[in-house]
Amino acid sequence: MVPKKRIDEILDGYDTSEITIATVCSHSSLQIFHGARKMGFKTLGLTTKDNTKHYDAFPLAKPDEIIKYSDYDEMSERNGELLDRNTVIIPHGSFVEYMGANKFEDFEVPSYGNRAVLQWESNREKQRNWLTSGGVPMPRLITDAREINEVVMVKYHGAKGGRGFFIAKDYPDFKMSIDSTQPYTIQEYCMGTRYYLHFFYDPLKKDGYMCKHGGSLELLSIDRRDESNIDEMYKMGSIEDAKRRGLYPSFVVTGNTPVVIRESLLPKAFEMGENSVNRAYELFGGMWGPFCLETVVTDKLDFKVFEISTRIVAGTNPFISGSPYADLIYPGLSTGGRIAMAIRDASVSNDLKTLMT
Amino acid sequence: MVPKKRIDEILDGYDTSEITIATVCSHSSLQIFHGARKMGFKTLGLTTKDNTKHYDAFPLAKPDEIIKYSDYDEMSERNGELLDRNTVIIPHGSFVEYMGANKFEDFEVPSYGNRAVLQWESNREKQRNWLTSGGVPMPRLITDAREINEVVMVKYHGAKGGRGFFIAKDYPDFKMSIDSTQPYTIQEYCMGTRYYLHFFYDPLKKDGYMCKHGGSLELLSIDRRDESNIDEMYKMGSIEDAKRRGLYPSFVVTGNTPVVIRESLLPKAFEMGENSVNRAYELFGGMWGPFCLETVVTDKLDFKVFEISTRIVAGTNPFISGSPYADLIYPGLSTGGRIAMAIRDASVSNDLKTLMT
Amino acid sequence: MVPKKRIDEILDGYDTSEITIATVCSHSSLQIFHGARKMGFKTLGLTTKDNTKHYDAFPLAKPDEIIKYSDYDEMSERNGELLDRNTVIIPHGSFVEYMGANKFEDFEVPSYGNRAVLQWESNREKQRNWLTSGGVPMPRLITDAREINEVVMVKYHGAKGGRGFFIAKDYPDFKMSIDSTQPYTIQEYCMGTRYYLHFFYDPLKKDGYMCKHGGSLELLSIDRRDESNIDEMYKMGSIEDAKRRGLYPSFVVTGNTPVVIRESLLPKAFEMGENSVNRAYELFGGMWGPFCLETVVTDKLDFKVFEISTRIVAGTNPFISGSPYADLIYPGLSTGGRIAMAIRDASVSNDLKTLMT
Repeated sequence: MVPKKRIDEILDGYDTSEITIATVCSHSSLQIFHGARKMGFKTLGLTTKDNTKHYDAFPLAKPDEIIKYSDYDEMSERNGELLDRNTVIIPHGSFVEYMGANKFEDFEVPSYGNRAVLQWESNREKQRNWLTSGGVPMPRLITDAREINEVVMVKYHGAKGGRGFFIAKDYPDFKMSIDSTQPYTIQEYCMGTRYYLHFFYDPLKKDGYMCKHGGSLELLSIDRRDESNIDEMYKMGSIEDAKRRGLYPSFVVTGNTPVVIRESLLPKAFEMGENSVNRAYELFGGMWGPFCLETVVTDKLDFKVFEISTRIVAGTNPFISGSPYADLIYPGLSTGGRIAMAIRDASVSNDLKTLMT
Repeated sequence: MVPKKRIDEILDGYDTSEITIATVCSHSSLQIFHGARKMGFKTLGLTTKDNTKHYDAFPLAKPDEIIKYSDYDEMSERNGELLDRNTVIIPHGSFVEYMGANKFEDFEVPSYGNRAVLQWESNREKQRNWLTSGGVPMPRLITDAREINEVVMVKYHGAKGGRGFFIAKDYPDFKMSIDSTQPYTIQEYCMGTRYYLHFFYDPLKKDGYMCKHGGSLELLSIDRRDESNIDEMYKMGSIEDAKRRGLYPSFVVTGNTPVVIRESLLPKAFEMGENSVNRAYELFGGMWGPFCLETVVTDKLDFKVFEISTRIVAGTNPFISGSPYADLIYPGLSTGGRIAMAIRDASVSNDLKTLMT
Repeated sequence: MVPKKRIDEILDGYDTSEITIATVCSHSSLQIFHGARKMGFKTLGLTTKDNTKHYDAFPLAKPDEIIKYSDYDEMSERNGELLDRNTVIIPHGSFVEYMGANKFEDFEVPSYGNRAVLQWESNREKQRNWLTSGGVPMPRLITDAREINEVVMVKYHGAKGGRGFFIAKDYPDFKMSIDSTQPYTIQEYCMGTRYYLHFFYDPLKKDGYMCKHGGSLELLSIDRRDESNIDEMYKMGSIEDAKRRGLYPSFVVTGNTPVVIRESLLPKAFEMGENSVNRAYELFGGMWGPFCLETVVTDKLDFKVFEISTRIVAGTNPFISGSPYADLIYPGLSTGGRIAMAIRDASVSNDLKTLMT
């Protein structure tokens, strides 16, 4: 990982009145660029592809400049020209995935958020330890497949974007579906409705919902993911019917819909967000900026958190002009805009080093 | 029930330039407080719990003051301090449920809307009589279980928030699932898409969609409820498969999604809203403010109303900054804001007594 | 079809500072009137029914005037009074369906968009040729029912608004369900999530996402349709169970929900939109204004376009005050508003003839 000292040196050399906000051209980049422009920043798109013409269609989200690299190695190596532009990068899920976690950790450009969180997010066991030791409820782990006596969710390690999951209804079903050459984990399948809670933790904000380590927690929006093909599979009669026809359920994320949660669940939701943040400070120096708790709410009105994303999620994209939650704090602001606001405020108060790693 | 005369006496003592809007801290309280603040009111949260920290996260919806009671009896008894603050209460579903209908009817604080509607809403038979005699189409009632020869919905009396319902596909299925120690009703199951129509009837508004008794009817928004666990149960293969595994469908409301209805259905929707209001005036002195018709639209494009809620529903929560319908009347206004607008206008025109019981 | 020369003559006689925007009172008319008022136009509703009272409830979308005709023949014949009002009509799906395609083609009032597109849209074979020859991916056609060896979608010709479709899982299922007295087409059933992409092509706009024939392509919003009764059919246990009880799946559109698509799919989406437009210019003089690609995204993240609508779709109705896409171009603008903006700009620059047929 880039030493924090190196990042601080770089920031010392920046003209903080001329910050450029950069991200990879995908995922939630329209929202990030749009928010950055709103807060008066220059914007820069990073890409290895030729498919950026669609930005022309969205003038309020089109980056001021796009740099095309032959690959992510080149992007890493040519960090100098980003530093020349006083660039800070906003990592999103695809940024980290495309560049590769290791390369991202070593990318010598100030990055919004704590890069140390990656190690705890990408390893399922460490993620579970972090959250459960913080008091966040997760689905129960089943360590021995022969003990499956209920419906379970099986996830191959490194499963991304909804691929590499399956639901097994019992042990025989598990046996029939498992590819045992790959490592996997088995957990209780939690039946209920899914809510992806988009939190934002600001270590520099000194009012609002205050947390133990001195910063303020916000809930900016909630979405539900569209998953192909599971969402429409019931049209096949039943999933059993579909399987007999060679059609197997998959969980590939293709989009997002806006949703709100029952208001009486908000206290619990905030408690889970707060616990995730507090424990992150104890374990690895903290987590700040946007993060997402991916939850199921059962018919007992209990939450189960099946995953945490420690940066902006694409589920914030429906809320480019605000949400039923953000509008109670910052009317009309998106998560992308909230990130830019944090960077703007920190550059004014000379606190950029607190936010960048 | 508090005599109307007593409420009017209380209002006579109010300083109408210093009205406080109060509600119980749950359900749609963020929206109610947000709307009240927008219209310039003081706001007051009523609670019996310690879980109100999340209001800190939403500064534009945080009540100016929160009073914590040990229980709802104490809330009733300490009504004096509410009167000292010139308080009017906005009842929502959880307010009435938590306090208890009887206690709510006797709560000596001016309440927005007609409390007499409660008797007609809470009793399934009276509700059905009210609506069907007004010409509102409801699912057919099946009075003798042995006559079940189609898919039916069975509801235990007093079922709340989505608990206490089940779908039976035939008589044997009914026999297997019914708990005959509890009273229940059986009705035709209406297959179709669900629309929860959020109406607002303003008896003091003299333009717009005018109704028989001199007020104006509005449609402010439409939602669909998320229900746990039924919404994701098809992932179990089929519901039959799930039942064999001991997983039974439930209908607990966990959140809401925004939706719009086919425009050609609006004339019928307004007719149903108008009929509900007109009949309410004939039967029990009227219904005003927000109410919700909970409907199914069949593939013949017919409505079936399976329930009416006679106060603000949580389904309005996605629309804190307006909706595709409200924006055609009051851009950016929520149902909570609409309630506050009605109270503001009535306090200016000295008509508060018309709105309060 | 009305000769273009005749339309141009009519436009020559118009007072372009006094244009009236008219449409049939249904479908997306609230949005069209709302958008037209925003851009300063007079508005006129055309109807053959008595059910227009609901417009009173939406003052910002209520047309300035409503003309009631006994039938669509009379509407055609009385075109003179529309010309007297300098009227341009905005055709929507119900307008064309109610009036009848032939009558609509001959209706002597300037109509926004290219009427020639109707011949290519309403004939399934021509529509398929247009799109696939343009490079837009569609579900594979199965020309001989005996070759069904996968799940298929069967559509009767002239199927409208979601009626007249069925899914067959194999040849025996097809045989059991088909009414062979009606003409039909069979296509591969594409499993995935549905996205209805609302594009807008402006031939007069000279910046943004430029297309081959000199105009600019926009994506204004995306919805998913609610379909009755298929959407809630899984509650019956499984569709097989339901069929045994005499309940058959149907696909009648009853409403719409807002949605966003995975950002990495946007380049492909724009390419499909652009290809549809470019090919339209080659085949029949072009397509401009709003159009909708009705797509499925598979779990391979491939698009399949199962239909094109060549005018405003009701799926734009959730977005009366903007959308996550429109807000990146014209904050707060609906498709109805965008149409009115195009007409306003063209009337200022004296280019109305380019937009009207």
